[in-house]
Amino acid sequence: MALLKGLKVTQIALVVDDIDTYLAAYARVFGIETPSHIVTDGQDKTGASYRGNMTEARAKLGFIHLPNITIELIEPIGEPSVWKDHLDQHGPSVHHIAFGVADKAAVAEDLGMDVVQHGAFTGGSYAYLDAFGTMGVDIELLQMDS
Amino acid sequence: MALLKGLKVTQIALVVDDIDTYLAAYARVFGIETPSHIVTDGQDKTGASYRGNMTEARAKLGFIHLPNITIELIEPIGEPSVWKDHLDQHGPSVHHIAFGVADKAAVAEDLGMDVVQHGAFTGGSYAYLDAFGTMGVDIELLQMDS
Repeated sequence: MALLKGLKVTQIALVVDDIDTYLAAYARVFGIETPSHIVTDGQDKTGASYRGNMTEARAKLGFIHLPNITIELIEPIGEPSVWKDHLDQHGPSVHHIAFGVADKAAVAEDLGMDVVQHGAFTGGSYAYLDAFGTMGVDIELLQMDS
Repeated sequence: MALLKGLKVTQIALVVDDIDTYLAAYARVFGIETPSHIVTDGQDKTGASYRGNMTEARAKLGFIHLPNITIELIEPIGEPSVWKDHLDQHGPSVHHIAFGVADKAAVAEDLGMDVVQHGAFTGGSYAYLDAFGTMGVDIELLQMDS
């Protein structure tokens, strides 16, 4: 069974409505320079899929690297996406925690959770599992290309 | 300046409405035995204060220990408390991230954030800072007794 046994949490991720304002607030609290955000690639590179259909949605991403974990801030661009859904339903708040896995499809199947969005990024790919109703937070599986 | 520079996140904490059901869900995902919850001490031992006034509110607490961080689940008992507020306003979801500090009053002052609830537990004390509006999550400062 490919559960999440023994894995560390690599990221705590929040969806926000104005990433640069949030990044500045985090920078002040942690005494660091305000990080710049990046913008995710387009559909041609990510192949992003939301609930089984291709989506043109993208996101601005910013990262606060702490000693044991990274805080990721996400501002949705366009829709549909799990990020836009979360922002609409919950407002700026924690959306998911992330785990690095070797085979995200196998983990999703063993956990018996639906993959609500997946896509690729340079060097790897991600899948969001619909865990909010049972865990109060979604699960992101991150798989690096071999 | 006593900011949170260089500190690790010790806990990710969620407020939930039925702690044992959530603990069972987490245990299944992480492939562990379902942890038992504990109940916080009463006002006589905690001296819990909510927005400047003593509160009789308590909570059930459960912990999932992962390699680099602990996930804490909190079910409010009674009110008023930041936990009950969060559950009423946001439903089961992530409420705060926690940091160990040497002087929580000094950190709160330097961050310029209001302490919305504080109290003691065996071996230490805690303070919640009102950061949700600027960070999307509250901050808990944990200070162990010297």
